[in-house]
Amino acid sequence: MNNEEFRRYGHQVVDWMADYLENIRDYPVLPAMQPGDLVDRLPVAAPEGGESMDAILEDFEQSIVPALTHWNHPRFLAYFAVSGSPPGILAEMLIATLNVNGMLWKSCPAVTELEQVTLSWLRQWMGLRPEFFGIIYDTASISSMHAIAAAREMADPEARTRGANRGLTLYTSEHSHSSIEKGAITLGVGQENVRQIPVDGNFRMRVDVLRERMEADRLAGLKPFCVVATVGTTSTSSIDPVPAIADVATEFGAWLHVDAAYGGAAAVVPELQGILAGAERAHSLVVNPHKWLFTPIDLSVFYTTRPEILRRAFSLVPEYLKTGEDTRAVNYMDYGVQLGRRFRALKLWFVMRNLGHEGVCRIIRSHIGYAQRLADLIRSHPDFEVSAPTPFSLVCFRYRGSDDDNRALLDRVNASGKAFLSHTVLNGQFVLRLAIGNIATQWEDLEEVWDLVRQTAKALATEPHSSASGN
Amino acid sequence: MNNEEFRRYGHQVVDWMADYLENIRDYPVLPAMQPGDLVDRLPVAAPEGGESMDAILEDFEQSIVPALTHWNHPRFLAYFAVSGSPPGILAEMLIATLNVNGMLWKSCPAVTELEQVTLSWLRQWMGLRPEFFGIIYDTASISSMHAIAAAREMADPEARTRGANRGLTLYTSEHSHSSIEKGAITLGVGQENVRQIPVDGNFRMRVDVLRERMEADRLAGLKPFCVVATVGTTSTSSIDPVPAIADVATEFGAWLHVDAAYGGAAAVVPELQGILAGAERAHSLVVNPHKWLFTPIDLSVFYTTRPEILRRAFSLVPEYLKTGEDTRAVNYMDYGVQLGRRFRALKLWFVMRNLGHEGVCRIIRSHIGYAQRLADLIRSHPDFEVSAPTPFSLVCFRYRGSDDDNRALLDRVNASGKAFLSHTVLNGQFVLRLAIGNIATQWEDLEEVWDLVRQTAKALATEPHSSASGN
Repeated sequence: MNNEEFRRYGHQVVDWMADYLENIRDYPVLPAMQPGDLVDRLPVAAPEGGESMDAILEDFEQSIVPALTHWNHPRFLAYFAVSGSPPGILAEMLIATLNVNGMLWKSCPAVTELEQVTLSWLRQWMGLRPEFFGIIYDTASISSMHAIAAAREMADPEARTRGANRGLTLYTSEHSHSSIEKGAITLGVGQENVRQIPVDGNFRMRVDVLRERMEADRLAGLKPFCVVATVGTTSTSSIDPVPAIADVATEFGAWLHVDAAYGGAAAVVPELQGILAGAERAHSLVVNPHKWLFTPIDLSVFYTTRPEILRRAFSLVPEYLKTGEDTRAVNYMDYGVQLGRRFRALKLWFVMRNLGHEGVCRIIRSHIGYAQRLADLIRSHPDFEVSAPTPFSLVCFRYRGSDDDNRALLDRVNASGKAFLSHTVLNGQFVLRLAIGNIATQWEDLEEVWDLVRQTAKALATEPHSSASGN
Repeated sequence: MNNEEFRRYGHQVVDWMADYLENIRDYPVLPAMQPGDLVDRLPVAAPEGGESMDAILEDFEQSIVPALTHWNHPRFLAYFAVSGSPPGILAEMLIATLNVNGMLWKSCPAVTELEQVTLSWLRQWMGLRPEFFGIIYDTASISSMHAIAAAREMADPEARTRGANRGLTLYTSEHSHSSIEKGAITLGVGQENVRQIPVDGNFRMRVDVLRERMEADRLAGLKPFCVVATVGTTSTSSIDPVPAIADVATEFGAWLHVDAAYGGAAAVVPELQGILAGAERAHSLVVNPHKWLFTPIDLSVFYTTRPEILRRAFSLVPEYLKTGEDTRAVNYMDYGVQLGRRFRALKLWFVMRNLGHEGVCRIIRSHIGYAQRLADLIRSHPDFEVSAPTPFSLVCFRYRGSDDDNRALLDRVNASGKAFLSHTVLNGQFVLRLAIGNIATQWEDLEEVWDLVRQTAKALATEPHSSASGN
């Protein structure tokens, strides 16, 4: 493809992109397909000769688009609904074009320095102390893995050279994200050394039990080295009592990591900054701008007040990566597993500037407002109940019926293509999760979904043998 | 930004992108700046109100572009020169727009299935056995970390639950990438349990020493669990003797991982497929399409013949991620640390189709041809010497003078803005590295750099006090 063609196809693709976002409500949220359908449509081998972009874009439209779950759809309400935004997309276009790798300051100074600047901006928006050093990783799973690695380095500085010691124990709520357990597995802590602390009636970690477990482990000769609190759990978006957890972590000299991958974004709204109470005492915190700060996937931000420990855990500089600026510049490769570093900061910069603090706050407030309003509607309906508090924009609810009824309801709603909700299990009951996070979601979308849910429940109730459709 | 504005700015950005790639030779490869220069230019806080895209794009051009190291420049010859390509960039535009997350099959079937298809295509191009299961990670560092984790799972199935055991030992050449050691640190193996096996005169792992060390460790009660061979080392692009290494790994029942992050791409060229001799016996292999397969950063491909072990090491499925298709579909989240999954396969699909097998082979052949031709020129010059064999497109060479002379030469060449070379140390000597990998690099670019290097060396030799300029 010569430059003239690149320009022409670039314009063509931009028009497709704008049309797609404009007409997003016309697509079914979930595709009607079975595993293997797309594989079966595509050739089993790559072409020998090059193919035209016309053919490729045609196949993209004919084969790929129908196999997409449209995360952009305003009625995608599953998992945590995330969303990019126009300025973020424009930035990704430039990131892909520049194709720089900021492993070192010298390998692309703009990557390192814009990362420093944007993460300082975000830190200020979130009301975090200036002592928090920021670094961008790809996902929260990787951010939290680095938190646990730094915790290990603090508790057992020999681990880096001699290998992980048995006997380190980690504490997190039974509602924490699976990435915490995965991080502990990866780092050689071991699953059985992850203490899943039970939660209270509002799905918040029980600090009394936390203290008991840590004390018991210490008496048993184990070393409680890390506590992970969550601000916005995945199942219900509950907020652990971080100030009290910080007291306990401090008492035991353990690293405190706050997983605010989803919920942390809400702290940019001044009146909501209290959700991060206690986080000022954390050693580290993760927040994902690709979740609720309108930045395209992937961009996870990790803050730590102890960057020197993180660096001690990971720094390794082979000869071919030594530069004359090593003593004067941050080389982000020293702070993690990954050497390669995309220019992710550029998209955060575009988004923060184009939306501005006010713009971001307006959208987050609207999402939370919609969730409260919807929760009220659900609560006031005799056939439904709200299953957990709604501190953010996630509504957990269920039809007053059996688990099978609720499963059938979810499957039927999702099969309609009009909305996509997900589920969880709370207190042994199957519960529907409706997460609002898409930049384009309007109140009318939620009214439509609520209508759909009620009508579907009604229809299922009148059918002779309602059962899960298997979707 | 409304949709009309998004379309307008999209077209404007596309024109900038096309202009940039067209005029890339006009930019200095390395920016003339000091650490902190960009930070000093930018506001210390993000704006309260949103700013126009005009202002943001203007600042991008005025502040960011001058702080870039231009990896796209055809005379960027440092590290491993990598390059995206027009079809890859077009795909990234769509990826950012769709903004899907393929953690599960259901969360976006196209992500999972296109990943299966493209990795099968690439496997065929590389001549690997159909038994190799493929998965995309972000970077080779993460790919290799997963290899070591799977090796640990195979050697010590209790590690997942009980924590890493002391006594596992890993073997790799002293020229292997730093990510291998980092992976071992992360996983709790420990740096001192990584045996850096010495190399022969051509920088290839010495298999006799490998066997001795493994035997000695076994006799000492340790468990040799993993051997990492490299096809295309970072310093010199040397190729470890994988068939003989495979024999030893088999003898000890150790996992064999082949790090072909850079070199593996050359195996798509039929007459070069011999570089992967022995890899058919590997348990895993990494190759980075974002290095030498013209795919924008980041996209690292991991192949393993033992996916069930990788899955056993990492699978963890919380309730909220269970789906009705779990038994019939691949859920890639089961095979690694990261839950989030960008739609990276789309860019590999665009690149493989648009360039075709022939197109990719043509470019890789040209790069290797340029490197051979340049190495011949260097060898025939009385003042220079080639410092290592040139099996791929990396030329290691030095001026016949002191290390300081070579350091000054490198600094002066890089400070010119006309080219960017990097360095390494071989047999105690400072050596220049010239890596050819950019899709736009022409022979004329290399002639220009070779002229620049010779003239600079000549100028330095005639200066009264030549010394490193500190750049």
